[in-house]
Amino acid sequence: MPELRRDPIVGRWVIIATERARRPSDFRGVPEPEEPGLCPFCPGNEDKTPREVHVAGRPSSAPPNSPGWKVRVVPNKFPALKIEGDLDRQAEGIYDRMNGIGAHEVIIEGPDHGRPTEDLTPAELTEVLFAFKARILDLRNDLRFRYILLFKNHGHLAGASLAHAHSQLIALPVVPRQVMEEIAGAHRHFDLKERCIFCDIVGQERKDRSRLVYENEEFVAFAPWAPRSPFEIWIVPKRHESNFEAEPKERLSYCAQALKATLHRLAVALGRPAYNFMVHSNPLRDPSSPSYHWHVELMPALTQVAGFEWGSGFHINPVPPEEAAEFLRRVAG
Amino acid sequence: MPELRRDPIVGRWVIIATERARRPSDFRGVPEPEEPGLCPFCPGNEDKTPREVHVAGRPSSAPPNSPGWKVRVVPNKFPALKIEGDLDRQAEGIYDRMNGIGAHEVIIEGPDHGRPTEDLTPAELTEVLFAFKARILDLRNDLRFRYILLFKNHGHLAGASLAHAHSQLIALPVVPRQVMEEIAGAHRHFDLKERCIFCDIVGQERKDRSRLVYENEEFVAFAPWAPRSPFEIWIVPKRHESNFEAEPKERLSYCAQALKATLHRLAVALGRPAYNFMVHSNPLRDPSSPSYHWHVELMPALTQVAGFEWGSGFHINPVPPEEAAEFLRRVAG
Repeated sequence: MPELRRDPIVGRWVIIATERARRPSDFRGVPEPEEPGLCPFCPGNEDKTPREVHVAGRPSSAPPNSPGWKVRVVPNKFPALKIEGDLDRQAEGIYDRMNGIGAHEVIIEGPDHGRPTEDLTPAELTEVLFAFKARILDLRNDLRFRYILLFKNHGHLAGASLAHAHSQLIALPVVPRQVMEEIAGAHRHFDLKERCIFCDIVGQERKDRSRLVYENEEFVAFAPWAPRSPFEIWIVPKRHESNFEAEPKERLSYCAQALKATLHRLAVALGRPAYNFMVHSNPLRDPSSPSYHWHVELMPALTQVAGFEWGSGFHINPVPPEEAAEFLRRVAG
Repeated sequence: MPELRRDPIVGRWVIIATERARRPSDFRGVPEPEEPGLCPFCPGNEDKTPREVHVAGRPSSAPPNSPGWKVRVVPNKFPALKIEGDLDRQAEGIYDRMNGIGAHEVIIEGPDHGRPTEDLTPAELTEVLFAFKARILDLRNDLRFRYILLFKNHGHLAGASLAHAHSQLIALPVVPRQVMEEIAGAHRHFDLKERCIFCDIVGQERKDRSRLVYENEEFVAFAPWAPRSPFEIWIVPKRHESNFEAEPKERLSYCAQALKATLHRLAVALGRPAYNFMVHSNPLRDPSSPSYHWHVELMPALTQVAGFEWGSGFHINPVPPEEAAEFLRRVAG
């Protein structure tokens, strides 16, 4: 059973995913390259994944785990957290632990092995975002879960071990620090000004325009003021909304357009870099919040986390966001 | 001039190191491999570095920047922060910036190009730690600086661009979040119990022994309860001391032994992995604190920071610290 352990000084949680562990002696390398034709995410190999929990594009009369789908969500075969059991919170001397209860699912973004996310049509990418929403709406019924993090690792340098386009979700029994800090920061701003800080940021970025990358009726993509890495981009809804899962499909289609446009620009400008994106939303079952605002954070994997970053939490970024945004704006849409 | 920018939501500072910037269009790759014979840290090439600010092992009658040294500290030729100027704190709409004032120095750990840190003698490594102390004692006189982070990047995967054994320091005009959080967490524990949490941890680890890696009269090395990465190790003085620079040279020699023993075990067990270490100490000019306790955090670069880690602040670690410690204990000392 995986375990959640809390650092007693700073309160950081760590997942000790014992069942993913290689022996320490094997711990030297990189994942095995995928053998062609054996990709577990390709049509025809549906039996290589656990039974699907969401599907789009296949007639409802067809049996589960059969081909003909457009988007498929399956439990991760090597999950970081396990869905069965209870938390069983315990002390060990001055330390805290609990069982690693959670869900870990893979969103297979399309049937075509060689087609990266930015080459999906806006309609196809909308189905991917809609699958994110469907999984949140289902998993939030499990009262053990407090937060669902949606994220994507694309490319080996960004931590992906399979090439076929996919994203992931992890449902957690605690709200992660990164999100708690955002919520607390947004709350302080709201207390002071009675305005959402993300709405303020969207306002300043649309007015200033120097960090703007892309804009449509509903969403804006920009390089944030203090980016952790070169070409970090945030995609933020213009209308205030705290909960991703509250968005109707029509607005998700605008988000899909903004995501595709941003990924396309990064692919052209930087030569299809490895990247990560993360969706930050209000914790599960929290009512709509006037101070928090869901958004996507996207970071190409161009720099390394090294001693200074680990030790300080500072990041050193050699590319000002104004330069990155200008460079991306120049790419034809 | 580099710039410090503050994220308006979570308060994270980022260094926009414009003068290190490649053009965005060049931003694709890895550092150039070092050409043999051209290493700027080798004896005979002293003129390839800025003028040294500390030296050990050379007679004081010899001119600066001449050979014959054992340890040499020089300003970084490509500094993340600049030493000249003032902070000039400014607002830009809702955002905060200041000039990137600070010091960025390189500690060249020995004259021998091919000799890694773990192969230095304890006496040689003591001179390296003593150089850390000497630089803190000098730089803390500059009242613009609030914190000095000492760290080492070893190996390309850990962010090093030069192979010759060296560590670095960055003096900062703000106390970094990572350290603030440790100080705040330790302070909460002290308020509750009137004991230092690091002293409590050292006590529990020495009693429990399952995570212990190495111990001598003055220092203990152990895998922490909630490690962020496989084989993360902390080296902590047994006697309470908040400030690294307050340690006499004799105790630094025990720290050097513990560091050497730990690095040696990691090198044997994992086949000379890339790694980072960071020294966490009390902020500059803060009086000795009963609740905070300086220490070294050491992490081999075996796993990647990916979407889940970026988005949550959680880390997924496939190797329990008890297994890592047992594996390292089995390496002959």
